[in-house]
Amino acid sequence: MDIGLTITVFETAAWLKERDNFLILTHRRPDGDTIGCAGALVQALREYGKTAYVLYNPEATARYARFVDTYWSPEGYAHENVIIVDTASKELFPKNGREYLDTVSLCIDHHPSNTFFAQLTCIDNNRASCGELIYDILMTMCGHISAATAQCLYVALSTDTGCFAFANTTADTLRIASLLIQAGAPHRDLNKTLFRTRTLGRVRVEAMILSSLEFHFDGAVAISTITRDMLAKANSSEDDIDDIASIPGSIDGVLAGITIRELSSENDCKISVRTSPSINAHEICKRLGGGGHAMAAGASLNLTISEIKKSLLAILCDFFPPKGGALP
Amino acid sequence: MDIGLTITVFETAAWLKERDNFLILTHRRPDGDTIGCAGALVQALREYGKTAYVLYNPEATARYARFVDTYWSPEGYAHENVIIVDTASKELFPKNGREYLDTVSLCIDHHPSNTFFAQLTCIDNNRASCGELIYDILMTMCGHISAATAQCLYVALSTDTGCFAFANTTADTLRIASLLIQAGAPHRDLNKTLFRTRTLGRVRVEAMILSSLEFHFDGAVAISTITRDMLAKANSSEDDIDDIASIPGSIDGVLAGITIRELSSENDCKISVRTSPSINAHEICKRLGGGGHAMAAGASLNLTISEIKKSLLAILCDFFPPKGGALP
Repeated sequence: MDIGLTITVFETAAWLKERDNFLILTHRRPDGDTIGCAGALVQALREYGKTAYVLYNPEATARYARFVDTYWSPEGYAHENVIIVDTASKELFPKNGREYLDTVSLCIDHHPSNTFFAQLTCIDNNRASCGELIYDILMTMCGHISAATAQCLYVALSTDTGCFAFANTTADTLRIASLLIQAGAPHRDLNKTLFRTRTLGRVRVEAMILSSLEFHFDGAVAISTITRDMLAKANSSEDDIDDIASIPGSIDGVLAGITIRELSSENDCKISVRTSPSINAHEICKRLGGGGHAMAAGASLNLTISEIKKSLLAILCDFFPPKGGALP
Repeated sequence: MDIGLTITVFETAAWLKERDNFLILTHRRPDGDTIGCAGALVQALREYGKTAYVLYNPEATARYARFVDTYWSPEGYAHENVIIVDTASKELFPKNGREYLDTVSLCIDHHPSNTFFAQLTCIDNNRASCGELIYDILMTMCGHISAATAQCLYVALSTDTGCFAFANTTADTLRIASLLIQAGAPHRDLNKTLFRTRTLGRVRVEAMILSSLEFHFDGAVAISTITRDMLAKANSSEDDIDDIASIPGSIDGVLAGITIRELSSENDCKISVRTSPSINAHEICKRLGGGGHAMAAGASLNLTISEIKKSLLAILCDFFPPKGGALP
């Protein structure tokens, strides 16, 4: 644990009002929440009369970069206050942000795993997205939300909740989303682009994953495999395979959805395990030298796909005992 | 047009308060909105001390029937007032509801195409779901919503908006959904079941559709084909192929997504066309003897899939002129 103090939404709003020349950081492999929060904050601060920029994030993909790319900080920008959003620990800083590791003034976050690495941390673990916390801070600070700010916050809320379908969604998430639409967030265009459009690369990968599915233990386990050859044929990017590990687990009756993916060679694979509450994904992956959370875990293995399948099925026998007791 | 009068939400609430012994009808091929509305109405009326039942709908699938099946009217139920929900015209009555065609006292609906076939119609075309209108009526009538009623209304709102992702979603849809969660709607379980679980039959059909995709006119047209053989191999039900026509149109860059499906024989096909605003789906289907809406239309044809493809590609040349003008 680091040493930072926690501050409330009201204190954070007051802190922002009293200061100027902000540099805002996002986390590595940036998602819609960190980018949406940075975009909303930089815009609202400027509307309030402050100087603010976002630190360029080299890993920002086209899907999200467009919401902040006019705000990247110019070379030599003399910032006074560094803020990082939606970032739980120092390990999650982007490579080009490591120089600020020990000088972050304020972290705004919603992850229970936050290590309080910043001088001040405004945190609420009960929020589905960091965007909800930023909304409260900006409403406290400014009393209103502009359409441009509302757009960024809608991106944050909607992407972190799978368009309000994930289990983290709360009544408050929907209430704030409703207010953001009233404030001018173009939710129709955003939903179409973010949730109702698939790239051709994605479509091809999904078709391959669905075709590759194998079921075991009476349909309780679904295993999909992704080879380097499949990805090359589909001509798909990292963006295209975002969140594919959730596909096998989304099938009716499946308690453990497992994805085995080849990385640099056929002996370099990673497995992702997604489970229902009754099966512990972390315990499964621990047996393969990996780990993670109770319902989402993984492991990296220097074995081929077929070797991994064999080990995995042996391990899974302990988690899925044969039905029907003593009967053959 | 029929001859019914329109009444407001407030008049509808007063009308319900003054009457008793209700029979509630849903539309044929019932979806989550009509079932959710009927379930909410029957429960709220009973909580208010009224007698109310829902007419059995023989087409209700397992996905939705569970929300109303304890309320099916018993044989010989002596109803006094027939109400139908989410139903625009007499053509949409379920087969076993045709005896009530001319005796519906009240229709509650949100379709612009409503023909005012009932004695009284409470309608608001601007609502994404009929459930939003029922919410207003029940809040006016009772001043509160029970958890069981909230569950049904959440089903109505969420299914008619694709879990708040479709273009019909409004700020008010999200506001009411937020209030329904506060009232006790189990949104986590509902979202998991309704939006984040796919049947194996659905997964297999999706894999086949994605694998069958053909692209034309520089990727602006995507055609998927579904043969009887594919459906038999996937062992899929009608529930599994619900809304599959939207798949080709959801791909990045596609302006016209077309699905050709074999029905009873290889010479009995139906095509579904989904388009972006710049392409008129109705005009395309009219050329094949069909029709529909500007962005969603269809046609039935006594031709094989390959014959239909040939005709279709010829017709589409008029809608997608070759790029680059006179250059070869």
